[in-house]
Amino acid sequence: MSAEGSRTVEERLAALEAARAISDLIATYGPLVDSGDAEAVAALWEPDGIYDIDETRLEGHAAIEAMVRSRGHQGLIAAGCAHLLGPPRVTVDGDEAVAVCQSLLVAHGEKGFRVLRATANHWHLRRGPAGWRVRVRTGRVLDGRTEAPYLLAEGAHGRRVDET
Amino acid sequence: MSAEGSRTVEERLAALEAARAISDLIATYGPLVDSGDAEAVAALWEPDGIYDIDETRLEGHAAIEAMVRSRGHQGLIAAGCAHLLGPPRVTVDGDEAVAVCQSLLVAHGEKGFRVLRATANHWHLRRGPAGWRVRVRTGRVLDGRTEAPYLLAEGAHGRRVDET
Amino acid sequence: MSAEGSRTVEERLAALEAARAISDLIATYGPLVDSGDAEAVAALWEPDGIYDIDETRLEGHAAIEAMVRSRGHQGLIAAGCAHLLGPPRVTVDGDEAVAVCQSLLVAHGEKGFRVLRATANHWHLRRGPAGWRVRVRTGRVLDGRTEAPYLLAEGAHGRRVDET
Repeated sequence: MSAEGSRTVEERLAALEAARAISDLIATYGPLVDSGDAEAVAALWEPDGIYDIDETRLEGHAAIEAMVRSRGHQGLIAAGCAHLLGPPRVTVDGDEAVAVCQSLLVAHGEKGFRVLRATANHWHLRRGPAGWRVRVRTGRVLDGRTEAPYLLAEGAHGRRVDET
Repeated sequence: MSAEGSRTVEERLAALEAARAISDLIATYGPLVDSGDAEAVAALWEPDGIYDIDETRLEGHAAIEAMVRSRGHQGLIAAGCAHLLGPPRVTVDGDEAVAVCQSLLVAHGEKGFRVLRATANHWHLRRGPAGWRVRVRTGRVLDGRTEAPYLLAEGAHGRRVDET
Repeated sequence: MSAEGSRTVEERLAALEAARAISDLIATYGPLVDSGDAEAVAALWEPDGIYDIDETRLEGHAAIEAMVRSRGHQGLIAAGCAHLLGPPRVTVDGDEAVAVCQSLLVAHGEKGFRVLRATANHWHLRRGPAGWRVRVRTGRVLDGRTEAPYLLAEGAHGRRVDET
């Protein structure tokens, strides 16, 4: 592999570590949000990071914490729910990165469990003094709206979808 | 990254290898249990390892093998099932580690497939002469019982929930 | 770890990179197929690679592209769907590798989302001048047919199931 041959051990280690750190961050979202840990969820983002979902656009830690503490989300937890995110494909470019994954929201109710929604997730991450954080996460429900497949395609090719 | 700068190549490689080995171990559980390979499932645990589930507490290889060979589990396989575990978040501390992930049990029946349950999984692992093995896996159904979000929170923060 | 002690840093890095590259490849399938990117889906395979599914056997890029462009698959995308693949267990042996994972096809319809099927996936991959590519992917629905658990077992043990 000539590409690998021209990279130093340090560069190769750093590339593996960056991909691992970003995968770890994304793997932590579901457990944190399903346990209602509002501050820890928000801390996955930069202080002014954005969580752009279908129905709303959350800007900054306070807005993300408020979503976790909302009646709607707390109701999901009280009834039982799992935000299960698939393994992300991560593309690192220096101190910026793009990741993509699909996710399922499975909720418990009187008739047992059901899939409330499947979502396309595009992540723009940035590395700062505290390590990798989410700059913008964009999620769109995979219910036929064209934005959702668009997010998957852009993410799979390592392309950003925001200008921030 | 000053933290990385003070670690040797050997230490950084070993950290990546440990996380990879644990992720691999967890990724093998679903395929093994859904194919009914009782001995290989049990071998993911230490000889006296524990699988603490809602309805029961399995201690040691023989008990775990018996679960896989039970009428209930064999019935799931015969009808068709998938234990799908999400990508774990792994926290390594020397020869001990904690991992957390959510899982779905999807089962086939007369009306097609459905989600039988979503579960919170907390893993305590230990490294021995044979590599990483499960010391205690604790699973609780995400149906509103408070133990399940507790497991997710503790796991996401890399904290153990057992004293063994 | 004596096994690690006898391997060079180069060998250990290369092993981690191979596992990462294969996991990345597999993590890209879902986002690409759910966004209908036929050419990029096909390019995950070798030019004469095989996608052996229950109902059919696709040989080569043109056949795989045609599947993505088919009325059936395009209908799934238009209504909304997620091919969610679990984290694979990867076993590398030189320039050949085996991976295994389960997957869910979640589809949107008039009554919301439901799990259309759960599938056992066995991957045989090969490394060439362009990096890792799929030689043969074999998928069987986990609906009780014995081939599906067989694929999971063989994949979990790192064994191939094809002769190509």
